[in-house]
Amino acid sequence: MRPKIVIIGGGFAGLNVAKGLKHTAADIVLIDRTNHHLFQPLLYQVATATLSPRDIAAPLRSILRKQGNVKIEMAEVTAIHKDEKKLSMSDGSEMSYDYLVIAVGSRHSYFGHPEWESVAPGLKTLQDAVRIREKVLSSLERAERATDKVIQRRLLTYVIVGAGPTGVEMAGAISEIVKKSIQDEFRTFGTDETRVLLVEGGPRVLLPYPESLSTVARNDLQEMGVEVRLNSTVTDIKSDGIQIGDEWIPTETVIWAAGNMASPMLGSLETPLDRMGRVEVNPDLTVPGYPDIMVIGDCAAAPDGNGKFLPGIGPVAMQAGHYTASALRQRLKGQVPSSFRYFDKGTMATIGHLRAVAYVFGLKFTGLIAWVLWSIIHVLYLIGFRNKLTVIMEWMWSMTTTKRSVRLIANSKQ
Amino acid sequence: MRPKIVIIGGGFAGLNVAKGLKHTAADIVLIDRTNHHLFQPLLYQVATATLSPRDIAAPLRSILRKQGNVKIEMAEVTAIHKDEKKLSMSDGSEMSYDYLVIAVGSRHSYFGHPEWESVAPGLKTLQDAVRIREKVLSSLERAERATDKVIQRRLLTYVIVGAGPTGVEMAGAISEIVKKSIQDEFRTFGTDETRVLLVEGGPRVLLPYPESLSTVARNDLQEMGVEVRLNSTVTDIKSDGIQIGDEWIPTETVIWAAGNMASPMLGSLETPLDRMGRVEVNPDLTVPGYPDIMVIGDCAAAPDGNGKFLPGIGPVAMQAGHYTASALRQRLKGQVPSSFRYFDKGTMATIGHLRAVAYVFGLKFTGLIAWVLWSIIHVLYLIGFRNKLTVIMEWMWSMTTTKRSVRLIANSKQ
Repeated sequence: MRPKIVIIGGGFAGLNVAKGLKHTAADIVLIDRTNHHLFQPLLYQVATATLSPRDIAAPLRSILRKQGNVKIEMAEVTAIHKDEKKLSMSDGSEMSYDYLVIAVGSRHSYFGHPEWESVAPGLKTLQDAVRIREKVLSSLERAERATDKVIQRRLLTYVIVGAGPTGVEMAGAISEIVKKSIQDEFRTFGTDETRVLLVEGGPRVLLPYPESLSTVARNDLQEMGVEVRLNSTVTDIKSDGIQIGDEWIPTETVIWAAGNMASPMLGSLETPLDRMGRVEVNPDLTVPGYPDIMVIGDCAAAPDGNGKFLPGIGPVAMQAGHYTASALRQRLKGQVPSSFRYFDKGTMATIGHLRAVAYVFGLKFTGLIAWVLWSIIHVLYLIGFRNKLTVIMEWMWSMTTTKRSVRLIANSKQ
Repeated sequence: MRPKIVIIGGGFAGLNVAKGLKHTAADIVLIDRTNHHLFQPLLYQVATATLSPRDIAAPLRSILRKQGNVKIEMAEVTAIHKDEKKLSMSDGSEMSYDYLVIAVGSRHSYFGHPEWESVAPGLKTLQDAVRIREKVLSSLERAERATDKVIQRRLLTYVIVGAGPTGVEMAGAISEIVKKSIQDEFRTFGTDETRVLLVEGGPRVLLPYPESLSTVARNDLQEMGVEVRLNSTVTDIKSDGIQIGDEWIPTETVIWAAGNMASPMLGSLETPLDRMGRVEVNPDLTVPGYPDIMVIGDCAAAPDGNGKFLPGIGPVAMQAGHYTASALRQRLKGQVPSSFRYFDKGTMATIGHLRAVAYVFGLKFTGLIAWVLWSIIHVLYLIGFRNKLTVIMEWMWSMTTTKRSVRLIANSKQ
């Protein structure tokens, strides 16, 4: 009988496992809560109206259409029963497995304040991105109609919490919208009346980067009109403002980019988790004592060989996906796979119009060169030729005009 | 003092009024519930995953950016007080006017069964289109996981009610998705197990067209696998099926394209409405007794000169918009405008992949020629060069592949 391999999650990690098992004699089931693979590094561009959802998402069924050994199920796993080798789903059904790959990614962590989520959305899914886009665009519409200058000012204030890559990219992009793209479009306020704040608890932006790049990024952001607040702690968020240290800043748009947390569903594994809720796995990415279960991507705390854990970033997830497919192929042949080794090619983040910072193979790049590097790499990684073409067109368009093409508020009342 | 002209609705009718007043010394306010102008004739292509919302929608502010005499307000008008010359908004605010143009379009009419709306969505807004797209795509996902063949069959049955242009276009496009685009993507059912029904109360499809074109359209649909039911009355719709005459058809996807109704808000005008709730206007499109109020587009019952009313279609709305702008310019100069005259250039509808019917200047076209005609005219009318380019690319893509590029279910649970 063919072994049954179940993969939970169709992100970078899970999709690469499925693809890597293309010629393997196994029955593979790929489970995802949505019907698409999402190119998460560009999600902030959907949230900021440059790209459309379809530009960065491709139906899993299209991607895997020709791979006859994969069945895709759109479903939600609620618990893993590792000793019975089966899963429970949110619709009450169950599924058995011979081998299980857990690649469910992560969600936002509000540091013990789950009530902040409703007023300060984070950015993980297409739905999150569209919600943030509508929030930003609606605030501008409401500001145009505001008769009270105090309320208008509050509506025109945007606060991004967390200055990692996502926070930096969001702050830059929102600043471009509210200070450039909308120029001449509103009659009751000017772009100089808008305000964008980037709040960070640590001592600098882009903490994992070399310090000189953090300085460049911070200067770039400030030149673009972003107020950068370092060493600042958020103590409260309400629908009409945010408390940063001693200061209450009235705003109706707070975006959360400060922390991640793995799915609480992983608790059902009953195995040690790290403080971000990630599963502490062996060097071969298996769960201790359960060589039939592998955990990869943002939901795994995998040893980096130097006593720390690998970071929850795209390249780690992709490489772990490739590794896992090959490890499973070896196991099916009765071989013992060697440990997973992550090859760090570098990191990069865009800041705004033709500006970025990149740290690649130990070399530092800034400005236009970094932006071009960033663009090339992201386009190359985008799944599917057609999407690449559209994204290039969108970028060429937004480069030449600073306009935003996807400024739609769909979710209005009837 | 400059006169204040308020336009309610940024569709074909309202937008053309605003644009036509470009060089007029007046303060113009354009009110819309959304922030975008929508190219409604292509909305069914968003609902059926060929186009993205942004391909057929453009922000009103971008379109009117350079027209300094227009202010745009995203708001909802709840009542018109014609003697006090002011409007009430849903947020409790009020607005006065010197001249008022009402161009609020229409909604679906469920013939006295408002409870059907929740199970049988219609297609008027971007939100409707995305909702229908998610409904169709989700039914396929659920069918893949169905363990009961009866339930699977129900999930794979699609019913479109009403065989006017929208119903015909939806039936053709849905048939293409469930019988062609998804080929080889599902493991538990084949495309021959899907079923698409088009239900019409009248004796033929595309009733306003010449009978020979109706016959061609019906044959084309049947060739594509659509079951066409004429002279059939819908007596009940539930979440798990539809009653058509004596027959109960199990289905979870019913799409409503059977009837339109103007906004109930028009009742506040206290002037005669026709049976579709449209305002019966004078030949110059003014409200009887109120020369300062004009009603145009789908919400107007305008005399066609032969004792009937003009139909609620795009070309009438556009021409009425142009006429209204010129009539207002004349009135501001103290002149009396002549009556509105609609110039009928013809009608057309697509049926499927390279198939359409067109009735233009008294000539009938079918098949590929009609499809090419239809494509050229729709692209020419699309607002904004960039959108045109994208739409042409999408069409070229879908022509060569029969694939669908926007197969996204965004609205999944977290």
